[in-house]
Amino acid sequence: MRKCYLDHVATNPLHPDALEAMLPYLKEEFGNPLSAYEYGNRAKNAIENAREKVASLINSKPAEIIFTSSGAESNNFALRGIALAKQNEGRHVIVSRVEHHSILNSARFLEKNGFVVTYLPVEKNGFVDPNTVKKAITKETILISVIHASSEIGTIEPIKEIVKVAKERDIIVHTDAVATTGNIPVDVKDLGVDLLSMAAHQFYGPKGAAALYVRHGLRIVPLIYGGIQETGRRAGTENVPAIVGMGKAAELSKAEIQNRIEYLSPLRDRIIDTVSGLENVYLTGDRKNRLPGHASFCVEYIEGESMLLLLASKGIFVASGSACSSKALKASPVLLSMGIPASLAQGSIVFTLGMGNTSEDIEFMLNEFQFVIKRLREISPYAKGWGDKEEGS
Amino acid sequence: MRKCYLDHVATNPLHPDALEAMLPYLKEEFGNPLSAYEYGNRAKNAIENAREKVASLINSKPAEIIFTSSGAESNNFALRGIALAKQNEGRHVIVSRVEHHSILNSARFLEKNGFVVTYLPVEKNGFVDPNTVKKAITKETILISVIHASSEIGTIEPIKEIVKVAKERDIIVHTDAVATTGNIPVDVKDLGVDLLSMAAHQFYGPKGAAALYVRHGLRIVPLIYGGIQETGRRAGTENVPAIVGMGKAAELSKAEIQNRIEYLSPLRDRIIDTVSGLENVYLTGDRKNRLPGHASFCVEYIEGESMLLLLASKGIFVASGSACSSKALKASPVLLSMGIPASLAQGSIVFTLGMGNTSEDIEFMLNEFQFVIKRLREISPYAKGWGDKEEGS
Repeated sequence: MRKCYLDHVATNPLHPDALEAMLPYLKEEFGNPLSAYEYGNRAKNAIENAREKVASLINSKPAEIIFTSSGAESNNFALRGIALAKQNEGRHVIVSRVEHHSILNSARFLEKNGFVVTYLPVEKNGFVDPNTVKKAITKETILISVIHASSEIGTIEPIKEIVKVAKERDIIVHTDAVATTGNIPVDVKDLGVDLLSMAAHQFYGPKGAAALYVRHGLRIVPLIYGGIQETGRRAGTENVPAIVGMGKAAELSKAEIQNRIEYLSPLRDRIIDTVSGLENVYLTGDRKNRLPGHASFCVEYIEGESMLLLLASKGIFVASGSACSSKALKASPVLLSMGIPASLAQGSIVFTLGMGNTSEDIEFMLNEFQFVIKRLREISPYAKGWGDKEEGS
Repeated sequence: MRKCYLDHVATNPLHPDALEAMLPYLKEEFGNPLSAYEYGNRAKNAIENAREKVASLINSKPAEIIFTSSGAESNNFALRGIALAKQNEGRHVIVSRVEHHSILNSARFLEKNGFVVTYLPVEKNGFVDPNTVKKAITKETILISVIHASSEIGTIEPIKEIVKVAKERDIIVHTDAVATTGNIPVDVKDLGVDLLSMAAHQFYGPKGAAALYVRHGLRIVPLIYGGIQETGRRAGTENVPAIVGMGKAAELSKAEIQNRIEYLSPLRDRIIDTVSGLENVYLTGDRKNRLPGHASFCVEYIEGESMLLLLASKGIFVASGSACSSKALKASPVLLSMGIPASLAQGSIVFTLGMGNTSEDIEFMLNEFQFVIKRLREISPYAKGWGDKEEGS
C-alpha cells in the first residue's frame, strides 16, 4: 500500500546524512565531552562543531546556543529561567493564546508561583497584534513570549514588530521557533529576540536534541542543575550523537532552505486551493504568512479523529490539532482562541509536508480525502449539526 | 598504540545490540509516539516495551518509570518535584555530602527558594550513617536523598537502613542510582525507596536516555511542562531511539549482571591490591562495599590532572574526581567530606572498568601507572609536600 506521511509537524524522518554523521558517536566515539583525554576531546569537538552549525543556521554566536533535549525543555527553560532571573525587576509575563502547551503550562506554573501572566488574544487568522502586546505591557512586565509559528495553524507571527514594541520598554522577548527553525529563514539578529527555542527533529535532525538561543550577556537561571556542561547553564551528560545529528541537520537546512520552500509551497497551495473549495471546509490560519509545508482546516460536521483514522486506513497520515495533545481529545485551545466555535474546532485537520512528499502523494491524498469527508458526513449524526448531539447527550 | 579505556563511570560505550535495536527508530520508524496512526503506534509500543524492560531491571511496575534525558534531569526532577509537591507539609530536605552535583546544586536551588537543607556528613569510607540521618530529621523533613553509590569513591550506601529510619517518620526517600543501576542488583522494593534515578549510558545504553522511578501513588510536580507525554509528568517529544536503546541495555544488564560482577570484581581487586601497596597511595571509599568495577585512590604529592594526562599519553584513559567537574579543577567536595585533606584530594585518581577490559589491560595499566607516579614525583616540586607550595604561592 502507498504510504503518504503528511504529518511533518509532529515529527520528521531523520535525514540519512544526519544519521551518518551520528553513527561514529554511537559506536567508537563514545567519550564523555568532559573527559580530559582524547575520547572526551573528540566528543567535545563534535558538539562544539555542531554548536557552530546550529548558530550559523539562526545567525547567532556559537556561545549563545545551549543544547537541550527537546523543544519543550527549551521553552520551559526560557520562561522559568528568565522569570527567576528577573523576578526582582517585576513579576508579569505576557504570552499569546496560540502558544504550544510547553509555554502555556510553564506560564501556569509561573502563575502558581507568584507571577501574573497575560494571555494575549489573537486575531481571526491567528495573528498576535503588536498593539495588543503594547497595551498588555505594565511596569512589572519582564518577559514576552510569542510563538514564531504555531504547528496547528501555520501562521507566522510578526515577531519583529512585537520585539519593536517590547524594546521600547526594554522587555525581554522569547520566541518558540520550534516549527520554523530550519523550515523558513530564522535570523535572531533580524528578529531581534533575546531567546529562541528550536528542536532538531523539526528539520530532519534527530529526536533528543534541541536548543535554546540565549542572547550574549543575558542571565538565565538553569532548569537542570549539576555539572559544568553548557557553561553551567544546562547540566547532564551531553547527548553527543543527537547533538552531532542536529548540527548536520542544521547545516543541510541552511544550504537547502530556499529549495525546500520552493518545493513545498506549491504542494501546500495545491492542498489549500483544493480543500478550501470543498463544502463547509475552512482554512485555519493565514493564507499568505504561513509555514511553507502547512495546510490546516476545520471540516464542519465531522470529528478530526474520524478523518484521521479513516485516512490512516488508506495509508495517509495526518494530524488533528497538536501532536502533543492529539490523544487528549479536547478542542484545541489555539483554534478556540481564534474565535472558531468548539464544534467546528473538533473537525480540525492538519496536513504538513516534507521533502519526501511528491505531487502524486498530494493528488492521491486529495482524492481520498474527498471520499473520506463524503463518507463520514453520510454516516455521521453530527452532520445534522452539533446542537442536536449536545441536546441528546 | 594499545587503548585502555578505564573511565566507565564517565560514560560507557553503547552495547552493539542496543545500537541494533535503535537503528530502525533512527530510520523508517520515525513516528511521534503521540500520533494516532501506525507510525505513532509503533513508536508508542516501542517505548512501552522499553519501559517494561527498565521496570523489570529495578523490579518496579512499568507505570512507575518516567523517561528523562539524563541522570542529572532525573535528580533535579526528583528533588524539586517532591519539594514542590510536599511544600505544604514541610520545607526541610536532607541530602548527603557525597551526592552528585545535580543533587547538591538542586539542593542549593531549594535553599534559595525557602527550603532548609541539611547536608549530612559521612564517615571515613564515605558511608552515610543511618543514625546521622535519624538525628537530622525534623518535623519539617519531607525528603531524604542519598546516593546509592558515588561515582567518585564507589562506596555503596546503606540505603535500605536509611529507608528504615525515614519510614519510621513517613518521609520520602530518593536515591541517585545512576552509578549502580545495571551494574549491581537494584531492586526498588527491596531498597524501599520512593524515587530512584538511573541513566542508560551507565549500563551500555545510549546517552540521552535516563529515567526516574516514582513509586505508584506518589505525586510529583513536573520539571518540564507541556504535552501529555509520560502521563503528563515529563513533556517533550520522546527520544524514541534512545529509549529503545535503554530498554535493550536494561534487558541485557538484567540477564548478564551476575556475569559482569564476577568478571569485573577480580580485575578491580587486582588494581586495588597493587595500587594500595604503592608508597603514599591511599584507597578512597570502602574496600568491600563498593562498585564491582571501581578502584579509586589518592596519590600524595601529585596532582590528579598530571597523572591523567600522562596516562592518556600512553593510551590509558582514567578520571580524576567526577567527570562532571573534571575540568573545574577544584578538589572534590566528596573527598573533602570524607576528611581527606585538600592537598591529598588533589591527587585523586579513579579507575572504572567495563566489559571491554581484559586482565592484560589491567597489567599494562598497573605497570605504566607505577612509572607515571615515579616520574611525576621526580619532577614535581609538590613531592616536597603541599605545605611548601602553599607557602610559596
